[in-house]
Amino acid sequence: MIKVSVMYPNSSDANFDIEYYCNIHFPLVVELLGDTLKGTNADFGLAGGAPGEMAPFIAIGHLMFDSVESFQNAFGPHAEKIMADIPNFTNTQPQIQISEIKI
Amino acid sequence: MIKVSVMYPNSSDANFDIEYYCNIHFPLVVELLGDTLKGTNADFGLAGGAPGEMAPFIAIGHLMFDSVESFQNAFGPHAEKIMADIPNFTNTQPQIQISEIKI
Repeated sequence: MIKVSVMYPNSSDANFDIEYYCNIHFPLVVELLGDTLKGTNADFGLAGGAPGEMAPFIAIGHLMFDSVESFQNAFGPHAEKIMADIPNFTNTQPQIQISEIKI
Repeated sequence: MIKVSVMYPNSSDANFDIEYYCNIHFPLVVELLGDTLKGTNADFGLAGGAPGEMAPFIAIGHLMFDSVESFQNAFGPHAEKIMADIPNFTNTQPQIQISEIKI
């Protein structure tokens, strides 16, 4: 199983509309990717590791697939529509991490 | 539910012993944190979002707890032992993200 993590970096001038993300963006991604999507979750940053430290990421969306190929086949045809929705809820540029879920 | 993500940054000179992490470090953390730990998983970076791009993180360990307080109470007494094991498998310094699992 692989996980695609879409990580929105935190900073003092970053903004992020959690309601839009949860109610419009995330459901849109789930609908477009369909059955190839094997699991999802979304995390919202509360804190970093040191007292008073900001979370490194405002939000991280995780999408699970059987394989990298399965992700690419599902995402490719909808990439433009999904990416075009990002400025509707944040002024940040997400970092993408593709991982193998090992444990 | 909250998630503590321990994220080991990638770079050209970073090293990370996946076998040690999976077979010694991760089980040590699970044993020390005990029943307050509500779930775990570990991801290993395969790629970034652009063709040929490195994953931003070599590895990310996720630990789930009922609350930030429950994490702090469980982790505090064992922090020194857990942190002291990190140089045994990597030359990187992890970033810590504490998140609320919202979706």
